[in-house]
Amino acid sequence: MSLDRMIENIRRTGNPTVAGLDPKLSYIPAYIREKAFAEFGETLDGAAAAIWEYNKALIDALYDIVPAVKPQAAYYEMYGWQGMKTLTQTIAYAKEKGMFVITDGKRNDIGTTMEAYATAHLGKTAVGGRLLPAFGGDALTVNGYLGSDGIRPLLGVCRETDAGIFVLVKTSNPSSGELQDQLLGDKTVYRTMGDNCEKWGEELPGKYGYSGVGAVVGATYPAQLTELRESLPHTYFLVPGYGAQGGGAKDVAGAFDRDGLGAIVNSSRGILCAWQKENCAPEDFAGAARREALRMKEDITSVL
Amino acid sequence: MSLDRMIENIRRTGNPTVAGLDPKLSYIPAYIREKAFAEFGETLDGAAAAIWEYNKALIDALYDIVPAVKPQAAYYEMYGWQGMKTLTQTIAYAKEKGMFVITDGKRNDIGTTMEAYATAHLGKTAVGGRLLPAFGGDALTVNGYLGSDGIRPLLGVCRETDAGIFVLVKTSNPSSGELQDQLLGDKTVYRTMGDNCEKWGEELPGKYGYSGVGAVVGATYPAQLTELRESLPHTYFLVPGYGAQGGGAKDVAGAFDRDGLGAIVNSSRGILCAWQKENCAPEDFAGAARREALRMKEDITSVL
Repeated sequence: MSLDRMIENIRRTGNPTVAGLDPKLSYIPAYIREKAFAEFGETLDGAAAAIWEYNKALIDALYDIVPAVKPQAAYYEMYGWQGMKTLTQTIAYAKEKGMFVITDGKRNDIGTTMEAYATAHLGKTAVGGRLLPAFGGDALTVNGYLGSDGIRPLLGVCRETDAGIFVLVKTSNPSSGELQDQLLGDKTVYRTMGDNCEKWGEELPGKYGYSGVGAVVGATYPAQLTELRESLPHTYFLVPGYGAQGGGAKDVAGAFDRDGLGAIVNSSRGILCAWQKENCAPEDFAGAARREALRMKEDITSVL
Repeated sequence: MSLDRMIENIRRTGNPTVAGLDPKLSYIPAYIREKAFAEFGETLDGAAAAIWEYNKALIDALYDIVPAVKPQAAYYEMYGWQGMKTLTQTIAYAKEKGMFVITDGKRNDIGTTMEAYATAHLGKTAVGGRLLPAFGGDALTVNGYLGSDGIRPLLGVCRETDAGIFVLVKTSNPSSGELQDQLLGDKTVYRTMGDNCEKWGEELPGKYGYSGVGAVVGATYPAQLTELRESLPHTYFLVPGYGAQGGGAKDVAGAFDRDGLGAIVNSSRGILCAWQKENCAPEDFAGAARREALRMKEDITSVL
């Protein structure tokens, strides 16, 4: 019913970061793609097989040093239901290895439809007399544009399955301010959404002071990260935008509390493409991902 | 690059409505579920098989009188990748029958990730040297909370594949006003988002005066529907909230222009559960859906 399991993983590894699994085919070494295409052809099945082999090796290389993975649903959906099957396998494998899985789907809808998304990604689906997990993540990113009707249906499912959510508050992109920075009365939209997270989170209290309702706040906005950390004491932050998008360790420092908790910083491209940046042998892609994950851990923890 | 094909379907059928395909298992007659479970067990495969048989019969019963279907992604995701496979089959079948397919996914993200969603639902995915459709819809609902960075990546894909989008503007749910009705300066959030649709739509002009960027505006807010119709002359409205959510024909009248265009009104539960409401033989579920679709057409067109 909260993000406690994620926090325990962060403590165990001493690493407040999450590896984003955004498996674009172009990130995957050619030998893996070619093997998959040789078996399945240049098809969605072939793409899905390549992604699965790539993800599995990355999880094997990271699970003992990185507390969590964040698969980005879009990069699985673009390979159709075959890609979604790989998402399911990836989530199950990461969980089996003890990782906390944040499905980055930014889902949003209302009432029973939002309940269906909650069931899909965090709960169990009733089929006849059985309850079956569909995708089986531990947390889901969600978008609160529709108001409380879009968030409340998640809270019951989170309580039942010990899961959490991260609500988009202040996103990392350049145009995030078009709506999020605007004033609603005397408060910005992002601050209003952040205050909502505190309110929704009251229903999912956690034993480390943080609720099951977290917030997405971009590393590219350090001032807002600091403002929100001070004003949202029970809301854990998922922080994208480190690395490729331009955020550095100093930019994310304000997202953490005095105990070094309060935030988990994501890196996707930095870790996934480390083998290209290092220019190492493609067969060493997972080793390069591990080296980059360790470098990132040092970088982030140096400012705590 | 626009919603022209949808408009042509609306004209051909004389019917400005769309059938929402939200296939909860409880909506499906027991004999279909039992047959699927007998073959596949009480599994996600069994659920997916039941949904596919149900959807196929509904499309067969509706395609000549209803211009479009709107599958709600959540109700497929809750049955895992197997459900997503059924979504793929459903979209392909509806298109084969000439229907316009609006995938209701309310997707949102930024940059290349949003491009991945656009590719998944409206475009073609590059795999090796081939370009393959993943889900293959004609339009996608999207959420603009992240600003222009979340919408612009869709426009190029829409142009390439002659597809459209519907941006959430004023949603039909009771709490939609928490954010959407707030004032940003002297304009509401929903009006600001609506004006953005006009602006984004300039890149996807259509031959009937409406662009490829539509807006979702709920039937439960007739005053806002009328206000938005008057101020957004190039933006087609997808109108949920008719029927089960409480909106009637009079409530949606203001969404239409003088030619009876400008809006397409959705009904999901009303059509899907018509057989339960009629209390007819379960085997006649598709016939009941057709009767309800015709009743809805009469109801809506009577106010134009």
